[in-house]
Amino acid sequence: MGHFNMKVLIVHAHPEPQSFTASMKRLAMETLQVQGHEVMLSDLYAMHWNPVASAADFGVRQNPDYLVYALEQRESVAAGQIAPDIAAELDKLLSCDLVIFSFPLYWCSMPAIMKGWLDRVLVSGKIYGGLRFYDRGGMRGKRALLAYTCGGRDFMFGEHGIHGEMDIMLRHVLRGTLGYAGFEVLPSFVAFHVPYVAPGEREAILERYGDYLTKLEELEPLSFPTLDDFDAEMRPLASHPLVAEQD
Amino acid sequence: MGHFNMKVLIVHAHPEPQSFTASMKRLAMETLQVQGHEVMLSDLYAMHWNPVASAADFGVRQNPDYLVYALEQRESVAAGQIAPDIAAELDKLLSCDLVIFSFPLYWCSMPAIMKGWLDRVLVSGKIYGGLRFYDRGGMRGKRALLAYTCGGRDFMFGEHGIHGEMDIMLRHVLRGTLGYAGFEVLPSFVAFHVPYVAPGEREAILERYGDYLTKLEELEPLSFPTLDDFDAEMRPLASHPLVAEQD
Repeated sequence: MGHFNMKVLIVHAHPEPQSFTASMKRLAMETLQVQGHEVMLSDLYAMHWNPVASAADFGVRQNPDYLVYALEQRESVAAGQIAPDIAAELDKLLSCDLVIFSFPLYWCSMPAIMKGWLDRVLVSGKIYGGLRFYDRGGMRGKRALLAYTCGGRDFMFGEHGIHGEMDIMLRHVLRGTLGYAGFEVLPSFVAFHVPYVAPGEREAILERYGDYLTKLEELEPLSFPTLDDFDAEMRPLASHPLVAEQD
Repeated sequence: MGHFNMKVLIVHAHPEPQSFTASMKRLAMETLQVQGHEVMLSDLYAMHWNPVASAADFGVRQNPDYLVYALEQRESVAAGQIAPDIAAELDKLLSCDLVIFSFPLYWCSMPAIMKGWLDRVLVSGKIYGGLRFYDRGGMRGKRALLAYTCGGRDFMFGEHGIHGEMDIMLRHVLRGTLGYAGFEVLPSFVAFHVPYVAPGEREAILERYGDYLTKLEELEPLSFPTLDDFDAEMRPLASHPLVAEQD
């Protein structure tokens, strides 16, 4: 990145278009475009995105009497029969080099409208399936990052912080979703204490975010398991570092 | 529990009414009713629950020009102006002794329709606010538990499992949401490998779940921080075990 022109998908969710999170989204678009990258935006509130995974997502059903959502995803995508709103997002996702998730932290996770983007768009078959996950996941070769705002202060997170480490609180997304899907996951950009800080501090956060966005190449990606350390049933092999360390 | 009649709220989300997860929900209702408890059900797909937090949730706005969702929640609930679907769920929640969240694991978390129940129903002011969280949270005195199904096998989770410990993957709900809100959180009931197991194995899981539900009293709740170990700014005091252990 930085050396070539990327296609970037920003998935953004905030119910207030004037919010600080929305300012971060606009800054990301401008900063990346100035660098010569192509930016696609999925502004989920503006799109009235439907976050509810249901039988209505499939034009034709493999089994019309009993819904196994992942199975119908796999077959529907293969047959070109997935709901048009999902197909459009999937096209953006499959064509991009980097995905930025832009949101305010709601209950230590994404707002439901964005969780429903993951539920519906990260389809079985294309994104993962069988033994295709982590370093063999369908999103191999793409990068992803979270850029989020929260009300808490930085010292509330971390080893001695009252809430523990933020990356552990967000493990379900960073590792369980993005890492699992095969993305190279860059360290998150976190804007702390946002509802309470003075305008000057907001400017400083935006400046820090702009700087972060121009230096993505310098970031060390998060580390996840490799399937090389597990057998075909996903039982740890002797080479697994946690197992080896006990010998 | 067990010694007195509880009011139990089951919040259930699965897009297939014939699913195994739905069987678990029915079993929970029957088992608890037979024990003399009163059971309320919020079947989110059946209710067509709206999971999207937005300005439409408030009858009157404190600030009609700029939406701060938590602020409007606080004021709307106090003024009796919150959306009727939220008010109805809040009534159930505030009147119950135990909440059971019944769902299939989607991307190491709840389906979006249930995440949106948390986003919209766990309102600022009633559930948390100011210094009312963890052992001072608004849900103090109530219990909560997760009962979920997943496709993975039990050995994929845990210290040496490929996905690490399940309770860490779900920390955002167990600690970041339920623990934060003040619930006493009981160990989760997890049904592994559900889409792949034979009918006999499904019966065995249901039997194990019925047994779990009749022995809730015997379960050791999860452990979360106490605000006694932090100052008014939520910086750790010398009494904080992680700090003390370094001395």
